[in-house]
Amino acid sequence: MSEKKNLNIGLVGYGFMGRTHSNAYCKVNNFFDLEYRPQLKAICGRGEENAKAFAAQWGYESVETDWKALVERDDIDAIDICTPNNTHAEIAIAAAKAGKMILCEKPLSMNLAEGEEMVKAVEEAGVANTIWYNYRRVPAVSLAKKLIDEKRLGKIFHYRANFLQDWTISSNLPQGGAALWRLDVNAAGSGVTGDLLAHCIDTAIWLNGSITDVSAMTETFIKERMHNLTGKVEKVGIDDACTFMCHFSNGSLGLFESTRYARGHKALYTFEINGEHASIKWDLHDLHRLEYFDHRDDSLVRGWRSVHVTDGDMPYMDKWWVPGLQIGYEHTFVHQVADFLDGLAKGTPTSPTFREALETQRVCDAVLNSAQSKQWVNV
Amino acid sequence: MSEKKNLNIGLVGYGFMGRTHSNAYCKVNNFFDLEYRPQLKAICGRGEENAKAFAAQWGYESVETDWKALVERDDIDAIDICTPNNTHAEIAIAAAKAGKMILCEKPLSMNLAEGEEMVKAVEEAGVANTIWYNYRRVPAVSLAKKLIDEKRLGKIFHYRANFLQDWTISSNLPQGGAALWRLDVNAAGSGVTGDLLAHCIDTAIWLNGSITDVSAMTETFIKERMHNLTGKVEKVGIDDACTFMCHFSNGSLGLFESTRYARGHKALYTFEINGEHASIKWDLHDLHRLEYFDHRDDSLVRGWRSVHVTDGDMPYMDKWWVPGLQIGYEHTFVHQVADFLDGLAKGTPTSPTFREALETQRVCDAVLNSAQSKQWVNV
Amino acid sequence: MSEKKNLNIGLVGYGFMGRTHSNAYCKVNNFFDLEYRPQLKAICGRGEENAKAFAAQWGYESVETDWKALVERDDIDAIDICTPNNTHAEIAIAAAKAGKMILCEKPLSMNLAEGEEMVKAVEEAGVANTIWYNYRRVPAVSLAKKLIDEKRLGKIFHYRANFLQDWTISSNLPQGGAALWRLDVNAAGSGVTGDLLAHCIDTAIWLNGSITDVSAMTETFIKERMHNLTGKVEKVGIDDACTFMCHFSNGSLGLFESTRYARGHKALYTFEINGEHASIKWDLHDLHRLEYFDHRDDSLVRGWRSVHVTDGDMPYMDKWWVPGLQIGYEHTFVHQVADFLDGLAKGTPTSPTFREALETQRVCDAVLNSAQSKQWVNV
Amino acid sequence: MSEKKNLNIGLVGYGFMGRTHSNAYCKVNNFFDLEYRPQLKAICGRGEENAKAFAAQWGYESVETDWKALVERDDIDAIDICTPNNTHAEIAIAAAKAGKMILCEKPLSMNLAEGEEMVKAVEEAGVANTIWYNYRRVPAVSLAKKLIDEKRLGKIFHYRANFLQDWTISSNLPQGGAALWRLDVNAAGSGVTGDLLAHCIDTAIWLNGSITDVSAMTETFIKERMHNLTGKVEKVGIDDACTFMCHFSNGSLGLFESTRYARGHKALYTFEINGEHASIKWDLHDLHRLEYFDHRDDSLVRGWRSVHVTDGDMPYMDKWWVPGLQIGYEHTFVHQVADFLDGLAKGTPTSPTFREALETQRVCDAVLNSAQSKQWVNV
Repeated sequence: MSEKKNLNIGLVGYGFMGRTHSNAYCKVNNFFDLEYRPQLKAICGRGEENAKAFAAQWGYESVETDWKALVERDDIDAIDICTPNNTHAEIAIAAAKAGKMILCEKPLSMNLAEGEEMVKAVEEAGVANTIWYNYRRVPAVSLAKKLIDEKRLGKIFHYRANFLQDWTISSNLPQGGAALWRLDVNAAGSGVTGDLLAHCIDTAIWLNGSITDVSAMTETFIKERMHNLTGKVEKVGIDDACTFMCHFSNGSLGLFESTRYARGHKALYTFEINGEHASIKWDLHDLHRLEYFDHRDDSLVRGWRSVHVTDGDMPYMDKWWVPGLQIGYEHTFVHQVADFLDGLAKGTPTSPTFREALETQRVCDAVLNSAQSKQWVNV
Repeated sequence: MSEKKNLNIGLVGYGFMGRTHSNAYCKVNNFFDLEYRPQLKAICGRGEENAKAFAAQWGYESVETDWKALVERDDIDAIDICTPNNTHAEIAIAAAKAGKMILCEKPLSMNLAEGEEMVKAVEEAGVANTIWYNYRRVPAVSLAKKLIDEKRLGKIFHYRANFLQDWTISSNLPQGGAALWRLDVNAAGSGVTGDLLAHCIDTAIWLNGSITDVSAMTETFIKERMHNLTGKVEKVGIDDACTFMCHFSNGSLGLFESTRYARGHKALYTFEINGEHASIKWDLHDLHRLEYFDHRDDSLVRGWRSVHVTDGDMPYMDKWWVPGLQIGYEHTFVHQVADFLDGLAKGTPTSPTFREALETQRVCDAVLNSAQSKQWVNV
Repeated sequence: MSEKKNLNIGLVGYGFMGRTHSNAYCKVNNFFDLEYRPQLKAICGRGEENAKAFAAQWGYESVETDWKALVERDDIDAIDICTPNNTHAEIAIAAAKAGKMILCEKPLSMNLAEGEEMVKAVEEAGVANTIWYNYRRVPAVSLAKKLIDEKRLGKIFHYRANFLQDWTISSNLPQGGAALWRLDVNAAGSGVTGDLLAHCIDTAIWLNGSITDVSAMTETFIKERMHNLTGKVEKVGIDDACTFMCHFSNGSLGLFESTRYARGHKALYTFEINGEHASIKWDLHDLHRLEYFDHRDDSLVRGWRSVHVTDGDMPYMDKWWVPGLQIGYEHTFVHQVADFLDGLAKGTPTSPTFREALETQRVCDAVLNSAQSKQWVNV
Repeated sequence: MSEKKNLNIGLVGYGFMGRTHSNAYCKVNNFFDLEYRPQLKAICGRGEENAKAFAAQWGYESVETDWKALVERDDIDAIDICTPNNTHAEIAIAAAKAGKMILCEKPLSMNLAEGEEMVKAVEEAGVANTIWYNYRRVPAVSLAKKLIDEKRLGKIFHYRANFLQDWTISSNLPQGGAALWRLDVNAAGSGVTGDLLAHCIDTAIWLNGSITDVSAMTETFIKERMHNLTGKVEKVGIDDACTFMCHFSNGSLGLFESTRYARGHKALYTFEINGEHASIKWDLHDLHRLEYFDHRDDSLVRGWRSVHVTDGDMPYMDKWWVPGLQIGYEHTFVHQVADFLDGLAKGTPTSPTFREALETQRVCDAVLNSAQSKQWVNV
């Protein structure tokens, strides 16, 4: 193994995403045969105590409390950004200028303008870059991509996606700070649009091509919440729910909905694609399955097929266990790291790059504009 | 049984709906204990041969080929309208003037203006009237109504409904005439909006109250089809797909979609309601089940409950078999006849009346207007 | 329709099965094009009041209180036996002697010896005869038969069936009389073996051929119950649960289980067949679906297919509605009447005949013997 | 973290289970807060090349090719046995004599006699020991245990379990050697009984108490296969399928089936428990769900609940991600290591110990004896 090349990681942020990424770096070489091996060089967080504890738990060699210092370190090859959305641009642009590769959590940015600057920065610097839209790399979702690329569905008529949660229904839940920054418009930029629909849009563009125009509706059900950073009850600036209709450039119709007020759904990301010959459905709550319907089947035995995506011929699954034994959520991050490391070895970019993720940002901006103007908006 | 009162039925139209209604009239007294008993007095259809065959198969006593003659017959108490949408108004208005009760297939009318005349006619005549929005009387849907009326769901945040089919995908399918009048805009008035979304809207208003404004998108995927009545390839005037977002007056958000281009779905009418405390889902493809989630459940055993709506304490189910044994689609019509006959005995109207169905027509019109204007439209 | 031949029915018993059969006689000609038309000539029940009410509800022309009188009536063509199991043999043998056709509820008899006499009687009399093992005629089950006959499954390895209920768990439930005769060993002959497993065995033999030997286990969980006929607490003589393993003559292994103590299951009759190439699953709680798996499918889209058995090319379904709209439990009886009437016209027997049903009785007897002897028993 | 105590692991065998265990050792301290930290000290395999590659991939510090040498090493605290069943006893007994802790793959042994010696060895040596019946530690299965221990189900009537696979249907598949030792009776001891039913039995005893007597049936569908070790076609000595009925000491009835000839099932381990008040179902193909039915629910909303076992209050789930995001198969091994390390710190044994696993062995032996003798056999 001495021949493997190290890739020194500097991680910014030690929250939920800090954990999923760290796990991916730790595991990837146990399962994938790669030229590169991530080294957990440094973790950076403003809370030194927490950062040290995180370093101890995951084996990071050092701790920084200022990301600017991290970005300047010579022994760091790649900056991984796991901090709230309002910090992505500043960190990413500085990292690009320092010549670091960048793996940045989604969404790319607070808005389109910021995203464009980020793309410019990484492209001018010529550094490898990727955005963690991890759901592309659920094996069942990768399989959907493969089936579509093989033209099995025929002409596409409909694409619909939902991302339904129910964790913010209580009006007693405060906004802002630590685990609740997603409810604070200043940290998150938007509510479900940037947090959840961004995932749906990224997958949709990947599977079904570009979106041309949108008509959207948003709602904020709870208008005021205690703010953890100010200690006062303040107006809620995020969208609690967002729905939009759209057209794709391939002529199909799109329908998207996301909310955090759908009682009974924890993280129910689903999509369905209806083609002339075949249709596909997927559901994050049972992420190891893909539903497939093919009208060309013999009519006596034609029905939705529940494909248990665990065999060795399924995307990524030759690296794991045996047929019938499912992997979980965290593996999507391992797959993205594996692809990133493989891309490094081959000199190819890892999708979605910043530029690709900018398309999702463009749609998100159009959606929010449409909801405000109550008009159809071109993307 | 000699004490039962006869209700003499004159049925106009012997297609798919003519069969479902006839079956309901035949069966209702076997299962429900009612004061009235429908008598299959006359069937009316322009094709005399077909009408006679239908009469023989179902036991109608006589045949008419002109609905105007039927409406004038003294021995007819109620006119049942099962003809294409473009005939509803004329027949219903004439029947009302002749003092007949009217049971009319959905949708009420070709458009709002026509519907208003129909409502006026039946109300001025003071005749019993109802529209066959039969899905209200699926026991699982009636159960949903009961749970909502008992306030089990708490404040409602979301209502979404789909009606997905796939039977018109082939461009070789012609439009117009007999079984294909639903593809002919002159006979149907609209496509999926009046045919399928009308069902979804009727249920939605019943369960969740009135809709205040809508933003819609329609599409006609196949622009031209051979027309059976003209023998020529003609422009398709109906909507193949229709999607709309809306607000309900109770503050919840609505999302509706219908299409005949969703490969893999035959008649997939589904709805889901998300409340503060509980949520409900239903699906026509398994119409005997209701899915229910209650957040107040003990968290260790909290999950979506699949209620097999076959026990005797479920709506209408004390009239049928034993727990575990499902009824089907046709029973919804039996239930509506039973309720209509019961209403006659008690002197109460049977929902949805023409006036109630007019609300659905109002939303349909707003939806089609919005799709054309690309604007939000008030209902 | 005047050219249809009447088939005059004399029904014995007005319980649950009396209703399902009467409904079938009433509806069959509305949906099936047949030479014969059943006439509801007479209903026979010991309780005159109840019999009259039943006659009024279903339209029977006359009432008898003694089945012997019914059997002797010249205006009766066919006797339909819906009384408890302990009366089947006597009525059937007398009816055969009187030259009547016989439609008898399942199971054929109290035991094998009695069944053999019944077979002898109908065969000597040369009268048409059938046993109401209605589940064969669920369209999804008939489809399973068709798929098997087309050799789609290849060599069969396993057949398993369950019939699970939960309605007798309470020890407060009495036994005997009216609706509870199934708990009284003197009226029923056995518990779940004759009531529920008989269905499973009939289907199994039909689909998978004969059973050669069995090893069984029975249990009576509640040992004593109040007896409605004696007014005293008496020993329970029936089996509450019965499980057996077996071999089929085609080399496959069988596994059967039935109980009335499976909390959560109302009438969950399921079977699964595993073949070399393909497998099939079915479930009475969603009787309109058949699950099918074919290993020869392209591995990327290989999975269990949920076939919604409602299209016109499915068994019996061309007679009902349109794709996507399900029929229910009661339709299985309509199908059996339709097949019986069709068989009359063609001069062919209607499966299962008494002789065919005797095979099921033979297995039931072997099962009960094995449970008692704790040995494998040859059928 | 310097204060953590090391636990030096010596792993014997680098196959499928070698990977699952290594992954567990690597990850456990990232997710669980424990006193001990496993150190991957040595991997032992007869193939030096393969062993070195495995060591490189997983980070083992050294390689041994003779397990006897490994067992004698002073720097090893615990021996983990991942080799075929016919080696368990010899290695475990030697390890115990050398004073090593032992983590041994299931089943415990080739047969009961061997198992008894193993139990004696570890108990005399007083070394910590556990058998990797990993499915106990699927969170949904642990939840089932919790619900049962809380007496939610009431008196138990039925326990049924299946373990269905389809990977050996082809007669071209050889037996013996490397990945196919499970088909070689000399290496495996038995077929599905020891490989698959052993899992079902372990869970059953854990959840439902001891089994008193059994009646079993086995079958070997393919009688001869090419043997990889001899190069000749040889008789197949294992059971391809095994079914048994049994009684539990709590009065409930058991039914178990396993086969590798159930087309369409990859690793479908399911169990269902029916109690007086409530029932539970679980299925390995969707291991993150538990189905629960409670008869005490309000009858209008009573149904099987699908519990998505991903919330923080579910067993083990506070260590992983957020509600709605599932873990997979491999995590069960992480949980067992976590519990083992926690047990070390607290001085408590980790279930199932060798002694506990001996009970499963006892049932397996009775099952095989019953199948051969065609008699009921006491356990």
